[in-house]
Amino acid sequence: MAEVVHMIDSEVFLAFSTYATIVVLKMMLMSFLTSYFRLTKQAFSNYEDTALVKSSEDRKKLVRVDQDVERVRRCHLNDLENVVPFVMIGLLYALTGPDLSTALLHFRVFVASRFIHTVAYLMALPQPSRGLAFGVGLLTTLSMAYRVLTTALFL
Amino acid sequence: MAEVVHMIDSEVFLAFSTYATIVVLKMMLMSFLTSYFRLTKQAFSNYEDTALVKSSEDRKKLVRVDQDVERVRRCHLNDLENVVPFVMIGLLYALTGPDLSTALLHFRVFVASRFIHTVAYLMALPQPSRGLAFGVGLLTTLSMAYRVLTTALFL
Amino acid sequence: MAEVVHMIDSEVFLAFSTYATIVVLKMMLMSFLTSYFRLTKQAFSNYEDTALVKSSEDRKKLVRVDQDVERVRRCHLNDLENVVPFVMIGLLYALTGPDLSTALLHFRVFVASRFIHTVAYLMALPQPSRGLAFGVGLLTTLSMAYRVLTTALFL
Repeated sequence: MAEVVHMIDSEVFLAFSTYATIVVLKMMLMSFLTSYFRLTKQAFSNYEDTALVKSSEDRKKLVRVDQDVERVRRCHLNDLENVVPFVMIGLLYALTGPDLSTALLHFRVFVASRFIHTVAYLMALPQPSRGLAFGVGLLTTLSMAYRVLTTALFL
Repeated sequence: MAEVVHMIDSEVFLAFSTYATIVVLKMMLMSFLTSYFRLTKQAFSNYEDTALVKSSEDRKKLVRVDQDVERVRRCHLNDLENVVPFVMIGLLYALTGPDLSTALLHFRVFVASRFIHTVAYLMALPQPSRGLAFGVGLLTTLSMAYRVLTTALFL
Repeated sequence: MAEVVHMIDSEVFLAFSTYATIVVLKMMLMSFLTSYFRLTKQAFSNYEDTALVKSSEDRKKLVRVDQDVERVRRCHLNDLENVVPFVMIGLLYALTGPDLSTALLHFRVFVASRFIHTVAYLMALPQPSRGLAFGVGLLTTLSMAYRVLTTALFL
C-alpha cells in the first residue's frame, strides 16, 4: 500500500466507484420493492401506515405479515449482509493497487452475482441458483480481502 | 475525479466526515433505545438476557415479542438500509469535488431527513410524515449517486 | 485533518485496513454459520431451499423457525449494527492522524470485543458477558467518533 495516494486517482478507483455505486443502488431498490409489495398486498408493520390505503374501521387487519413482502425483506437483508462488506473491503482493495483487469474482474463478477441473486430470490428459482450466486459473490469479496491482508498486514 | 487527492483535504471532505459521523451516531443510538425498551418492557429475545431483570422461575415468559421493541428495531433496520448507503456513496461523492454549498445541502438535508424519520417512526406520527422523510433521504443519496456515476463512470 | 493525504499512506491506515478486514470477515462468517444451522437443523425461510435436503412430499414442514438459527441471525444483525459503524467511523478516524499506539488500541479492543461478543452470543453465556462485549465495542467506536468530530468539525 506504499503508493496508495497514487492509487486513489487511478482507473481502479474510478472502476470501484462505479461498480460500488451501481450495486448500492441495486440494494436501495429493495426499499422501493418492499413499499410496492406492502401497498399492493396491503400488509403493513405499523398501524399508522394502513391509513395510506384505507380509512375505514378495519385497518387493524392490515397490520399483518405477507409472505411476498417477507421474501423481499429477506433479499434486502441479504444484500446488506453482502453488499456492505463488498464496498468496505473493495475500497481498501482498490487502494492496494491491483491490476486494472484483475480489479475489474472482481467488481464485475460481484455485481453480476448480486443481480442474479436478486432475480433468483424474488422469482423463487429452484436451488442451487440462489445459493451459487450468493457463493460466487462471497468468494469475490474473500479474494479481495485476501489481497488486502497480504498487502497491508499490520497487526 | 482527476483531482481526488486534492479533494480529500478539502472542506467538502471535512463536512462529509462531520455529517457522516453524526448520522452514524444517531443510528447507533437505536441500539441503546432497543436495550432500554427491552429492559423496561421486559421483553427479550434470549433466555439468558432475562436474568438481567429477574431471578425467579418464571423468566421464560420474558422471552417474548413486544410491539414497542419491534418498532425501535424496525427503525434501526431502516437506518441501516439508508444511512449505510448514504455514507458509502457520500464518501465517493465527496471525492468527486462537488461545490461546497451543493455538498453541504446534500449532507444537511439527508441528516435532517433521518432525524425526522426517527421521530416520526418512534412517535408513530400519522403518515405520510415518515414516508416523506424516508423519500427525501433516499432522493438525496440518489442525487449523490448520479454525480458519482456521471463523474467517475468507468465500466 | 490537514495532512490527511499523508495519513492515507501511514501505518495507522495499514492497521485500520488490517483490522477492518478481519472484523468484516468475522461478520461474513455468520452467513456460513446460518447456512450450516439451516441445513443441519432443517429449518428454512424459503420453500425452494428445502429441496437442498429433501425431495419428498413433506418439504413444506421444513419452512419453519428454529431457535438456534434465529440466534445466529440475531448475532449477525448485531454485527451489522456495530461492525459497519466501526468501519465507517474508523476510516474517517484513521484519516485524522491519530497516534499509532492509540489507534491500534482502538482497533484491537474493538475487534476483540466483537469476537468475544460472538462467542458469548452463540454459546448463550450468562449475562452480562455479551452485554459487556457489546458495550466495550460501542465505547471504542464512540471514542473514535469523538476524535473525528473534534478534529474535522465542519457543519
